This record gives sequence, structure tokens and C-alpha cells, in this order.
Amino acid sequence: MLKQPRKAPRANGRPSLTPEEAEGMRSAIVDAAREIILEGGMPKLTARNLQDRTGMSVGKIYHYFDDMDAVATAVNSRTLADLDQMMVDEALSDPDASPTDILIGLALAYHHFARQEPKLWSALFERGITVMVTSTADWHLQEHLRLIGYVVKALCRLLPGRNEEACWLHARTLLSAVHGVVFLSVEGRYVAVPRESVDEELRFLVGGFCKGMSAV
Amino acid sequence: MLKQPRKAPRANGRPSLTPEEAEGMRSAIVDAAREIILEGGMPKLTARNLQDRTGMSVGKIYHYFDDMDAVATAVNSRTLADLDQMMVDEALSDPDASPTDILIGLALAYHHFARQEPKLWSALFERGITVMVTSTADWHLQEHLRLIGYVVKALCRLLPGRNEEACWLHARTLLSAVHGVVFLSVEGRYVAVPRESVDEELRFLVGGFCKGMSAV
Repeated sequence: MLKQPRKAPRANGRPSLTPEEAEGMRSAIVDAAREIILEGGMPKLTARNLQDRTGMSVGKIYHYFDDMDAVATAVNSRTLADLDQMMVDEALSDPDASPTDILIGLALAYHHFARQEPKLWSALFERGITVMVTSTADWHLQEHLRLIGYVVKALCRLLPGRNEEACWLHARTLLSAVHGVVFLSVEGRYVAVPRESVDEELRFLVGGFCKGMSAV
Repeated sequence: MLKQPRKAPRANGRPSLTPEEAEGMRSAIVDAAREIILEGGMPKLTARNLQDRTGMSVGKIYHYFDDMDAVATAVNSRTLADLDQMMVDEALSDPDASPTDILIGLALAYHHFARQEPKLWSALFERGITVMVTSTADWHLQEHLRLIGYVVKALCRLLPGRNEEACWLHARTLLSAVHGVVFLSVEGRYVAVPRESVDEELRFLVGGFCKGMSAV
């Protein structure tokens, strides 16, 4: 949650920051937090490390953000915007693409983003923003969840007989499945698919799911 | 790693434990560890809590296990055996089942186990055993990874033209995808599929994947 900076004049008599200046301070804090995560991952995002990086006191940082979760959320919001941009560039730029092509493209973009920015991507699931979506209304309301809307939209085109709620449910399944493949592979855990095979396997998985859904 | 108990006679002159007695001690420690995880999850599995639960000193516990990771691994091994049994019961008991039916059945069993034993299931991915499988040889060697073999076997039946290595790769993809759906739903995170829809959605996902793979 962003805090409104207090309006009281400073102790030294100079006027308090303008809204633009306050936004600049917030932005500088988020820049520093992002660098910390890029270097060492979310666990390194502590008030102390942020103080060392920005040269601002912990008190000053907490003037602009309620707590470190709020700082983490601000970094995650930027990451989601970057992910969104990659999905648009990779999967949504061809107006003639079929719904299946779009869904495969979105899955590949998701994978490519995770590989390109593994620390920022992992941070999405570790702290701050909880990308928990429980109903269709949520992603209409939440700008940063546009990416889920892309999947719903393509599924609704693929399955014209089904209503949006049904597409929404299948979109969650597909996203969870793709997330599972990407997450385990990026983390190298459990039964991870090897890095060089993930794109091809995602094509099989998403393409197969689309075929299966169309046939029902 | 299990430690061989030291053979030296006890300070009080009584002979050291027989192998059966030592095995009984180990088993009692694992029982207690499993109860601790069932009650509070893997984070509660500490040497101190194990001492309180078993009445054995920490030193005595470390006489039988190298460290707490080894205790966690022993609990996870039991969990995997239970999961294996549920998969056999739910998915492998019908000799006339098609490969697709078997693969759907395995996915459902995976989900049902996670719902029935959420704490033991989560513990599999938190500590101890790293269920990291990198080649076909691994699951032939590792008894507790039989469950992956079930998937490979069904896929090889479904895709008779493909060699075992290819089936193995697709099995990893399918397991990762199913894991993604189950994991996010059980944890209630991200774009989780609601509990009551997971079975049906897994049928779509696995059935679709099987269709897609067969058509390639």
C-alpha cells in the first residue's frame, strides 16, 4: 500500500516535498529494491539493505511505504508490467494468429520472461503482491492481471459455445499447468523438464490442451 | 542418510542395541517426526520438538540420524510410499484401462493424496529428499520414484513409435503440469483452480495432452 506523504513542513522550515518530488523518492526506493532483488533475490530485500543502497534512513523509507511488503509489492507490480509487455510483443502482435497460436505464444513468453529475469520472476511468488485471483471480476479490476485476461480471451475464441466463467476456469488450469512446467524447470526441482526442451514441451502441452478442450 | 549406530558397549556396561532394536529407535523417531509435520508442517520439525515428542535427547537422536534433513528424508520416503500406494489403488488396478485413463487416474490420485495429506505432501517439496530426477536411469534405480515410471510406461503405450527417452521427457512435462495445477490449488495461490473443479480440469488437461501427443 502506498502511503500519502505527510504534508507538514520540514523541521528546517523548508516546504514539504511536492507530489512529483515524493513520487521521485518512491521511485528511487523501488529502483534500489529492484536492484537488490536482481542481485540476491527477494530474501535480501531488507530495510537495512535498502538503507545502505539508497542512503535514506529506514525511517525515511517507512515514510513512503508502510512496510517492506509494500516495497516488494511495488517491485512486483513493475515486474508484472514487464511480463505483460513481453506477452504482448511475443504473442499478441499478429492479428491473424489463431487462439491456439496465441495460447502457445503466451506460454512461451511466460517461460522466456522467467529465464530472462529469474530473480524478479521468483520474487513474484515470494513476497508482497499475492497474485491470487478468485473470480473473473478480479482481473477486470486489476490492471496488472491483464495477462490472465489474454488467456481467457483466447479461450473464449477457441470455445465459442462456452461462457466466460467456463473459459475463466480453463484459463486458470492452463496457467497453473504452464506455471508448473516453467517453475519446476527454472528452479531445477522435482521432475523438472530440462531447459532446452521446455519450449517444445509447452507447445505439446498447450496445443494438446486446446485440442482436447475443442473436442469436448 | 541413515547412520550405522555405534557398536561400542554402553557406559553402564550393558551391550549395545541389536540391529532390530536400533531399527525400532529409528522408526520411533520417524513416527514422532511425522506426527510433528502432520500437526504443524515441516517448519516445526526441529531437534528440540523431536526431543520433546520422543523423550530422547537431541544427542541420542543424532546417534541415529546425521541431521534433521535425514529425519525429514525418512518421513518423505514414507510419504512417497503412501502416495505410490494410492496411485496403484486408484489408477493401476484395472488391467483393461487405456493409457489415457491410466494417466488421468494417476493425476487424480496425485490430487487426492495432496488433499488427504496436505502437510505431508507439502513437506515433500520443503526439506530432506530432493525429488530431483535427471535421467531415465534415476527412476529405475530409485525405488521411491516408481510413480514416475508409471507415467512413462503409460506414455510409451500411448505413443508406441517413440522411444523411452522421448516418453520420459513428456512424462516430466505432464507431471510438472499436473503438479502446477494441484500445488497452486492446494496452496490457494496465484491463479489457483478452485478445489471442487480440480478433478474435472485435470481430466481436460491430461486428456487433451494425450490427444495432442497422439496426433503429433
